Amino acid sequence: MCKVLDKINTPKDLKVLSKNELVQLCEEIRQQMLLRLSMTGGHVGSNLAVIEATVALHYVFNAPLDKIIFDVSHQCYTHKLLTGRKEAYIDPAKFSSVSGFTNPAESEYDIFSIGHTSTAVSLACGMAKGRDVKGERHNVAALVGDGALSGGEAFEGLNNAAALGSNLILVVNDNDMSIAENHGGLYQNLRLLRESDGKASCNIFRAFGFDYIFVRDGNDFNEITDALEKAKNTDHPVVIHMCTVKGKGYLPAELDRENWHYMGPFDIDTGKSKSKTAPVETYEALTAAYLAGEMRKDPTITAVTAGTPKVLGFEEELRKQFPKQFVDVGIAEGHAVAFVSGIAKAGGKPVFGVSSSFLQRTYDQLSSDLALNHSPAVILVFFAGIAEGSQTHMGSFDIPLASNIPGIIYLAPTCREEYLGMLEWGLYQTEHPVIIRVPGVETVSRDAALLSEYGYPAKYEIVEHGTTVAILGLGKFFALGKRVREKLEAEYGIHATLINPRYASAVDDKMLNALSGYGHKAVITLEDGVIDGGFGEKIARFYGTSSMKVLNFGAGKEFVNHVNVKEQYFRYHLTPEQIVSDILEVIKD
Amino acid sequence: MCKVLDKINTPKDLKVLSKNELVQLCEEIRQQMLLRLSMTGGHVGSNLAVIEATVALHYVFNAPLDKIIFDVSHQCYTHKLLTGRKEAYIDPAKFSSVSGFTNPAESEYDIFSIGHTSTAVSLACGMAKGRDVKGERHNVAALVGDGALSGGEAFEGLNNAAALGSNLILVVNDNDMSIAENHGGLYQNLRLLRESDGKASCNIFRAFGFDYIFVRDGNDFNEITDALEKAKNTDHPVVIHMCTVKGKGYLPAELDRENWHYMGPFDIDTGKSKSKTAPVETYEALTAAYLAGEMRKDPTITAVTAGTPKVLGFEEELRKQFPKQFVDVGIAEGHAVAFVSGIAKAGGKPVFGVSSSFLQRTYDQLSSDLALNHSPAVILVFFAGIAEGSQTHMGSFDIPLASNIPGIIYLAPTCREEYLGMLEWGLYQTEHPVIIRVPGVETVSRDAALLSEYGYPAKYEIVEHGTTVAILGLGKFFALGKRVREKLEAEYGIHATLINPRYASAVDDKMLNALSGYGHKAVITLEDGVIDGGFGEKIARFYGTSSMKVLNFGAGKEFVNHVNVKEQYFRYHLTPEQIVSDILEVIKD
Repeated sequence: MCKVLDKINTPKDLKVLSKNELVQLCEEIRQQMLLRLSMTGGHVGSNLAVIEATVALHYVFNAPLDKIIFDVSHQCYTHKLLTGRKEAYIDPAKFSSVSGFTNPAESEYDIFSIGHTSTAVSLACGMAKGRDVKGERHNVAALVGDGALSGGEAFEGLNNAAALGSNLILVVNDNDMSIAENHGGLYQNLRLLRESDGKASCNIFRAFGFDYIFVRDGNDFNEITDALEKAKNTDHPVVIHMCTVKGKGYLPAELDRENWHYMGPFDIDTGKSKSKTAPVETYEALTAAYLAGEMRKDPTITAVTAGTPKVLGFEEELRKQFPKQFVDVGIAEGHAVAFVSGIAKAGGKPVFGVSSSFLQRTYDQLSSDLALNHSPAVILVFFAGIAEGSQTHMGSFDIPLASNIPGIIYLAPTCREEYLGMLEWGLYQTEHPVIIRVPGVETVSRDAALLSEYGYPAKYEIVEHGTTVAILGLGKFFALGKRVREKLEAEYGIHATLINPRYASAVDDKMLNALSGYGHKAVITLEDGVIDGGFGEKIARFYGTSSMKVLNFGAGKEFVNHVNVKEQYFRYHLTPEQIVSDILEVIKD
Repeated sequence: MCKVLDKINTPKDLKVLSKNELVQLCEEIRQQMLLRLSMTGGHVGSNLAVIEATVALHYVFNAPLDKIIFDVSHQCYTHKLLTGRKEAYIDPAKFSSVSGFTNPAESEYDIFSIGHTSTAVSLACGMAKGRDVKGERHNVAALVGDGALSGGEAFEGLNNAAALGSNLILVVNDNDMSIAENHGGLYQNLRLLRESDGKASCNIFRAFGFDYIFVRDGNDFNEITDALEKAKNTDHPVVIHMCTVKGKGYLPAELDRENWHYMGPFDIDTGKSKSKTAPVETYEALTAAYLAGEMRKDPTITAVTAGTPKVLGFEEELRKQFPKQFVDVGIAEGHAVAFVSGIAKAGGKPVFGVSSSFLQRTYDQLSSDLALNHSPAVILVFFAGIAEGSQTHMGSFDIPLASNIPGIIYLAPTCREEYLGMLEWGLYQTEHPVIIRVPGVETVSRDAALLSEYGYPAKYEIVEHGTTVAILGLGKFFALGKRVREKLEAEYGIHATLINPRYASAVDDKMLNALSGYGHKAVITLEDGVIDGGFGEKIARFYGTSSMKVLNFGAGKEFVNHVNVKEQYFRYHLTPEQIVSDILEVIKD
């Protein structure tokens, strides 16, 4: 069926094709990609937009000698198709043989394992510098989306590229969209450049010291190829500002660009999603419903996102209802934290919602801008914990990251009721920076004992009074603790104590001391994240000089790429059977 | 003596002065400030540069109703002089009553505790948003240096200011210097703007969506005042791009701007430093000497700094010797980490030197750009550990920050010999991201047992074989461990085991298991940093299920503002007496 694509196994095979064949190849890739995406889901919009540019990059440059770096790399499907991994997009049996991101473990054509936005310019600067100090002479190119330009690391890279003073080609893929619409002054300049065919004299790329080439239609293979040919072997940094259409060539995706940024399996003819959304309540939806209600009552409540409004449950419709109280700062998590610190200092009530993986971008802002200033802002951390996803987007590191910063109260609710209780307290209190670890995706309900305030000193909740063993099940893993307790009871007649610690960032000295006095021989901690630097180690330290045995359970300190959650639980001794067996071993003497 | 200054107690007192008196006030402040600086030392260059602008800000605006935010805030001396804290600059007995940074605990005129660069634009955006949602109508102004504009958080703030669409006044203090000279494409644009009196059509601030006012001489009180009057009560974001002279009005500082960025006590007539530099070897100098030697032999070794070249010991003279191999990326630590990852991937040998406090800006880059990609770059962390400095620049958090990231080898040498051994290994190995915690300022020498390689698994060094108690003294605190051991021996006849753990990021299972078998009842850990999430807790976890007692010593989890080191040691039970007493308590049963 695919006449040209059949002939392509490495980028070298492109060099012998005619321009007409190359254009046909792009169309074949588009249809093949759509076919696979309709079955597996994936990043639809960005990948359809850069097919022509990617074919052109591999046609003009000589990878792997020339280096091509993909920012975020969620738009690398065409690159993978062209670099020996075609079958993974054609043969359903091989679909899972490649990940959705570049990964050097897969191919020598993939230079970095990337999944966080805005890094490619800086990485490309480094590749170019490495080339220069080694006296080599190849091209270094990076493909970067317009949305990614709002991130600080991208700006730092832009600023340093000019100083580098040697070959560096930055292809800016401007589809006038981030995941949702773009926000920020920069995008006014990109619009001005688009509307003036790149001729406007106020040009942010030139201001940063780049040479500049404008490509009106980056989905026109010949136009983008000509621009790349012009830039090839340059001795200084060049930006190719290329306009593309997100979702190009698939009407449903072109018409609804936000929802087609990432889409699960769909019917290719109608564009209808095949995912059956079960009628469950998610924490995102719960959050949006609660916040919207409060925002209507109190105009000083301000919800903030860094380019991912749906993480907070704010679909487009809801965002429109709060033009002043809902702020999307673009992909700029560091700014978001400083921004909410400023809002809180000025007497507003800010809430910033962010994925655990992207909280990693904010350590210094959490410490210097927020905690040091005691700003009473609330940060909600979504998608924390062990998951099956890519090693680039793990949610296992937020407890070590955020819980060891002085003054930050890091709360870990166990259920929807406790989550709402903590959120409400956090929102209306005026003294502490509060971070709340959202306990999973689907809400669970429990008759939790709520507190009227969640400041320090920490007060843990004893849910079941028992003896011999005390189980501290943090946040989402409270449920695991409950299962362990039930198993100990049913199978071994051990009546364990079950505790909800509520706080990831502090120890309840009083309660822990009391446990020693009530016949407990061992305390076990369960946390849904890496153990190193986390919650459990605080408990181990607390009991370090006592005779209490402490067993910490959690994830191992490693990057994990697409491993089934069950398999990870087994690997880390997190099944109830394994935990019980480990407990019995410890208390046997 | 100070005729006008005598009348100033609050900014209100400025309003009744004539322009001539205001100009005279600036000169009086300059002389008074110089007098104090010559006695106490401080940030000379930046403070002399912004006297006129600061008087003008307080003359034009109505603080504390109008909000004035100082980026980094090391240029806030005039602000403090004008806002009720004059005596701290006049009366030697009161010099220590104010810190060198803004601090809300000192005055209602200080909005944030700030010490890290590039944050003010984002914080000001938040203050402006908070004002807007509360329906208030005051001005929000921020004073930001040109050097600070190279940081990602500043760019993210610039990008979001325009989107805010309301009153925000950004005074860019362009003295054409960072701490050292500026680096980056942005600075070409600032030069173009200076040279065209702000008339160049390619204007980075306009590109970000700001209105723009150029001030040719920011040390001319009337000129800067006119600009501020124009911007006052604006309904949209405005940049006032003001040229000043770093060190203005004091010739030695004007002539040698890098060395007068921060200066200790000096002779005011000659400009000669009064600090007696003792003939000691510092780790900075040792590092520069070693690196320069290797760089001469190997052109692929690339030393990188983020705006603080002297931290790596690279004075101007040495930098000139390596125009290609020494790179200053500006105040952009995140970029620096991605940059060295790229250099390493391309086969170069990069070394990035950074202060512990600023390593905080790189968590995500350490994780995503560096560790996930196994890039064999070396990062040297200077000024780590408990110090007497400002709460804004603490070096106590780098162990929890960096040691819990998978794949990063965080080494803690105890002496110069071990430091050089680890540095040499890190530089020439090709598999691991390596971070080395520089053990203090002045070098110490020891007959350390060096390893030929410092990969995993970790191998600790037993320095003294003993019994009952094992002391793990990490890095700089190895010396403290030695003193504790000597005290136990001399006063209590206890022959303790003394261990140099070498690694902050990993446990030597084998050795720790062996300790249990050799009659040790307790293991104590000593680390020069916050205990939470750090090294000691890993040891406590390791022994959690055994009968070994573990005692962790280190800093408390708190921000500490200018507290004497001895006092902090006492507070944290870090004197040999306290440690020995705690040990005796634990082993007594």
